Amino acid sequence: MPTPIHKIAILGASGYTGAELVRLIATHPQLETTALTGERKAGQPMAQVFPFLRHLDLPDLCRIEEVDFSAIDLAFCALPHATSQAVIRELPHDLRIVDLSADFRLRDPAAYEKWYGKPHAAPELQEQAVYGLTEFYRDDIRTARLVAGTGCNAATGQYALNPLIAEGVIDLDRIILDLKCGVSGAGRSLKENLLHAEMSEGCNAYAAGGTHRHLGEFDQEFARLAGRPVQIQFTPHLVPMNRGILATAWLDGEAARLHAVLQDAYAREPFVSVLPFGTLPSTHDVRGSNYVHIGVVGDRVPGRALVVAVLDNLCKGSSGQAVQNANLMLGMDETTGLLGAPVFP
Amino acid sequence: MPTPIHKIAILGASGYTGAELVRLIATHPQLETTALTGERKAGQPMAQVFPFLRHLDLPDLCRIEEVDFSAIDLAFCALPHATSQAVIRELPHDLRIVDLSADFRLRDPAAYEKWYGKPHAAPELQEQAVYGLTEFYRDDIRTARLVAGTGCNAATGQYALNPLIAEGVIDLDRIILDLKCGVSGAGRSLKENLLHAEMSEGCNAYAAGGTHRHLGEFDQEFARLAGRPVQIQFTPHLVPMNRGILATAWLDGEAARLHAVLQDAYAREPFVSVLPFGTLPSTHDVRGSNYVHIGVVGDRVPGRALVVAVLDNLCKGSSGQAVQNANLMLGMDETTGLLGAPVFP
Amino acid sequence: MPTPIHKIAILGASGYTGAELVRLIATHPQLETTALTGERKAGQPMAQVFPFLRHLDLPDLCRIEEVDFSAIDLAFCALPHATSQAVIRELPHDLRIVDLSADFRLRDPAAYEKWYGKPHAAPELQEQAVYGLTEFYRDDIRTARLVAGTGCNAATGQYALNPLIAEGVIDLDRIILDLKCGVSGAGRSLKENLLHAEMSEGCNAYAAGGTHRHLGEFDQEFARLAGRPVQIQFTPHLVPMNRGILATAWLDGEAARLHAVLQDAYAREPFVSVLPFGTLPSTHDVRGSNYVHIGVVGDRVPGRALVVAVLDNLCKGSSGQAVQNANLMLGMDETTGLLGAPVFP
Amino acid sequence: MPTPIHKIAILGASGYTGAELVRLIATHPQLETTALTGERKAGQPMAQVFPFLRHLDLPDLCRIEEVDFSAIDLAFCALPHATSQAVIRELPHDLRIVDLSADFRLRDPAAYEKWYGKPHAAPELQEQAVYGLTEFYRDDIRTARLVAGTGCNAATGQYALNPLIAEGVIDLDRIILDLKCGVSGAGRSLKENLLHAEMSEGCNAYAAGGTHRHLGEFDQEFARLAGRPVQIQFTPHLVPMNRGILATAWLDGEAARLHAVLQDAYAREPFVSVLPFGTLPSTHDVRGSNYVHIGVVGDRVPGRALVVAVLDNLCKGSSGQAVQNANLMLGMDETTGLLGAPVFP
Repeated sequence: MPTPIHKIAILGASGYTGAELVRLIATHPQLETTALTGERKAGQPMAQVFPFLRHLDLPDLCRIEEVDFSAIDLAFCALPHATSQAVIRELPHDLRIVDLSADFRLRDPAAYEKWYGKPHAAPELQEQAVYGLTEFYRDDIRTARLVAGTGCNAATGQYALNPLIAEGVIDLDRIILDLKCGVSGAGRSLKENLLHAEMSEGCNAYAAGGTHRHLGEFDQEFARLAGRPVQIQFTPHLVPMNRGILATAWLDGEAARLHAVLQDAYAREPFVSVLPFGTLPSTHDVRGSNYVHIGVVGDRVPGRALVVAVLDNLCKGSSGQAVQNANLMLGMDETTGLLGAPVFP
Repeated sequence: MPTPIHKIAILGASGYTGAELVRLIATHPQLETTALTGERKAGQPMAQVFPFLRHLDLPDLCRIEEVDFSAIDLAFCALPHATSQAVIRELPHDLRIVDLSADFRLRDPAAYEKWYGKPHAAPELQEQAVYGLTEFYRDDIRTARLVAGTGCNAATGQYALNPLIAEGVIDLDRIILDLKCGVSGAGRSLKENLLHAEMSEGCNAYAAGGTHRHLGEFDQEFARLAGRPVQIQFTPHLVPMNRGILATAWLDGEAARLHAVLQDAYAREPFVSVLPFGTLPSTHDVRGSNYVHIGVVGDRVPGRALVVAVLDNLCKGSSGQAVQNANLMLGMDETTGLLGAPVFP
Repeated sequence: MPTPIHKIAILGASGYTGAELVRLIATHPQLETTALTGERKAGQPMAQVFPFLRHLDLPDLCRIEEVDFSAIDLAFCALPHATSQAVIRELPHDLRIVDLSADFRLRDPAAYEKWYGKPHAAPELQEQAVYGLTEFYRDDIRTARLVAGTGCNAATGQYALNPLIAEGVIDLDRIILDLKCGVSGAGRSLKENLLHAEMSEGCNAYAAGGTHRHLGEFDQEFARLAGRPVQIQFTPHLVPMNRGILATAWLDGEAARLHAVLQDAYAREPFVSVLPFGTLPSTHDVRGSNYVHIGVVGDRVPGRALVVAVLDNLCKGSSGQAVQNANLMLGMDETTGLLGAPVFP
Repeated sequence: MPTPIHKIAILGASGYTGAELVRLIATHPQLETTALTGERKAGQPMAQVFPFLRHLDLPDLCRIEEVDFSAIDLAFCALPHATSQAVIRELPHDLRIVDLSADFRLRDPAAYEKWYGKPHAAPELQEQAVYGLTEFYRDDIRTARLVAGTGCNAATGQYALNPLIAEGVIDLDRIILDLKCGVSGAGRSLKENLLHAEMSEGCNAYAAGGTHRHLGEFDQEFARLAGRPVQIQFTPHLVPMNRGILATAWLDGEAARLHAVLQDAYAREPFVSVLPFGTLPSTHDVRGSNYVHIGVVGDRVPGRALVVAVLDNLCKGSSGQAVQNANLMLGMDETTGLLGAPVFP
């Protein structure tokens, strides 16, 4: 029996997460890039927008309305926030979709409005959407029509914390998440502080003190696991590296216990490694891959611990996660096409 | 009356802090580099060891025993830890010394032994040494013979925390210091993880959970300010930038109050700026300079706040601080030669 | 007699060269920043546009028409190309001006039109302007009213080549200039390829094969020195470093002879160092400074040689050069305020 | 018929090229890493030496004498230069070997001695070895027992020049190769200038003027193609990027003709792309991949042209090339396992 090939559309292929999807699909044995859209760059070959993809035989960028969705098995939607919900509500209602924007991450319309500043345009879809953190929503994702890719910071923090919150081994009112984030997380946006001349050779905090929108995801998911509201403290920092997020979680809990809980939780996970107790991970070691490394160490202050998690924001934090979910939605092994080793150095 | 010129020796001039001292003294109107030592590179011109200094008319590197200390007004000692104490005890007892190593930072011999793993070789000097955080020891430094330069991480953390601890406006049992550190802090040491190929484009924690030696300084100084033991939590992270430390302090306290206390404390300090409330600093903005920027922001969790401080580890965190202290010891204005603006971009 | 202080206006202070001027003037003993203009950011304090300058007591940005030029001794004009000529023709005709744009570098209106694509708006001023490569136009600059700062690439190439062309020791029809350029040379322009994510960790040629506008300057200056047209080959490459240009000149000539000619030419120059024969320079060693380092090495092919020159594009290649010229125009020693050592590492 | 799996040993697996081999083999459908050696790190798990490989099930590092070569189908030898020849002469004489060192690149013992400073220890093997630039030695490689991987600089230059020399469309006495090289090319060697603090944010030439050992390869291969000695000029420059080489070839020839020749030569090559005339490549676009991009542009000086070639030094310039050759030697399609897309950004 020949291996079935699934036809894929990528909506919003001119940004980094769109390009990363193309990269991953290029060596995926069962996915085929059939349509690529980009409104402002419609008509251009991908090799012009992203010369690193020039060796691939890809369709030119087109407008969304030019795509024949009847020939598409699954669409990745890598459009900007807010645009995504407007587009998706107009797509065929039986089309499988993995959305990489923030639009369907929050199930509660009120929470959406709180964090994103306006009412949701497709609340009926919001309800249906499954949150895309594969390791924690695997069964729902398998049968979902619409999966909402997580925020990359939100993913990193949840890998560090979800099992600990679920098991009740940390003080829920004392969770601090200090993130160090690579610059590609800001996307291809033209801002002065993202220029090489201003970004390289320095770092700074941003969205500090609890204003970052990924907090909406943390609040939703942690409350669900804890059965009560959990309000963590979370501030990200911009670091001069292109890919990678390092989450340092400062916790009240017994380090050895935390380590045991994490090891148990991830023991059979193909992409999540818990390092030996006392060993801490580096973003260098997951660059370009779908892997997550997690380390635990005790603090000198008794009863306090650090958990550090790293992943590649564009891959496991976004497009790799999206492919992992698509694999499940299309009935494949979830690791298909995602076992590429990190690129080091 | 002609401006007096003070003759300076730099012991250990072949490392980064030694070279930074030469750089600062090059445009200092009242200091003159008279002797430079470097045991392994004795006999070499500085322009060979550090070509960026080739425009200067400098003495060749020599051995310490070749220096005529009777012609020296003040010696900077930029030798490795442990070497420093052995060398300094043999220097003339009336020679003014600013030591940049860790050897005289801890006043208590037991604390020294705890953090550095062996007994101190010159405990009598340890007692006399004045801790070199200028803004907090100014009067003692003015009359000191031996000043102990602080750790660069220790300096950054103290600028963020000292006034808050002194004023009692934060919970002393809930102080978390998450540092992001530039690689020059590791010195010119040849280690695989410091190679460009392994360091660039990623970050990682090190000396995690309360094992970093600069904790000895925090413990000493915070206890003194608080009048009781204070055990903070402190973990540094290595970030791919050459110069700069960013300290994120996660605190229990009222942000506005913290901001007011810091503003008061530093209102007349020439090198320390407290940014407007809610604005956070970037290491980019102090690179190559003796300035410190501090920002305060409230967290969404009531009663919690973040204080972020940045400085250049080689300058304000080490060699710039050393010159500032030397200025005081030699009767000059403490800002002399140190007002150079940061280098951006 | 008190040292006279000269009042300075910087037109176009919100770009990198404007900020670099402010940085240099901050420690200049005889210049005082009196007015700063920035059309789009008028009304903003400099500390908001460039937080690294926040320790300075600076005037807010204003519009050009708000400046009282009768109180100004010299204006630096760091405006965009083409804007500069329109602005300068309206300024008081006795105001000393150092222009950092490309507008007055080419004396011949036809050459200007060829390289910049439209007729010059102030050809009468074009004629008066003195080309600002200090070491070669020193006497003219001293008495000039309008000095045209050179292109940063053009400066680097000329330091390597001018004496060799003047002395006739290289084949004028075989001059290849392969440049490696730091990204700040592109200014604060918002382009995708200048984003950290796209620029770091790679390099590429641009304006290849003889299309870069700085060729207009090379053609003008080399023809003048040689007494005949000289058409060099010149292609720059963008390298992931913020500051610095390295020019590799591939030449037909006897290396030892070339070295001797360069040594002679620069023997008394305060800012230009010719390294020992066979030693090549690094941009690391001039970063943040007004120094130029030049090295010469013979090729294994007899009669061929390499000359490599490095400088900091924002300082010696632009704003440092501008201050050096202003020093001369205002009757000061040309090194005043420019002797700061490079920043390494 | 099941796909045959070939068992692979990697000798010298603790360096960058060794690790890159493991990375590539990890997703290669027909190669299996069976033995890994590393003398100084024998006994250690690979996950300790290279944490980025921790998700793989790999043998621990061992000493060469512990490997059972009778169970090995092909050995990659990633040992240091000189060590390699001593080791390979003792290996079973029927074992297929791809050597990544410089030891078997030069066929002529005299040339070897000239460039490497001592007589070859295994001249009889030197003669048998096939030069590993796949596109030009494909048939020989298919049946070779010992293939000598090329220098990474040598590979880049040859992709730009080989067809042009073979077709006689450029002046053979006027070939200049100005290379921009990523730092991983220097390997994991602990040198001050390779530290992040000294390497980042600057660039410099090295092995200038015709002293780099890869010239031995250029001389050998170009003479063979031209039927006469060809002595190019070649100087590499170190650029702050981890992976990537950009070769700028300055040539006497008609650009359009050169472009046509290159297009013809590489028309059916799976890994070599010739860009449209006038478009130049970037190392960013081949990072982490086995692809080569080549661009051609005319110079303003008639009859002169630039050819620019880029590749990833660790992959196509070394370990990817080695796998490509191994594929041929073991009877597989040469692209097997090598079609991974570059990693951007």
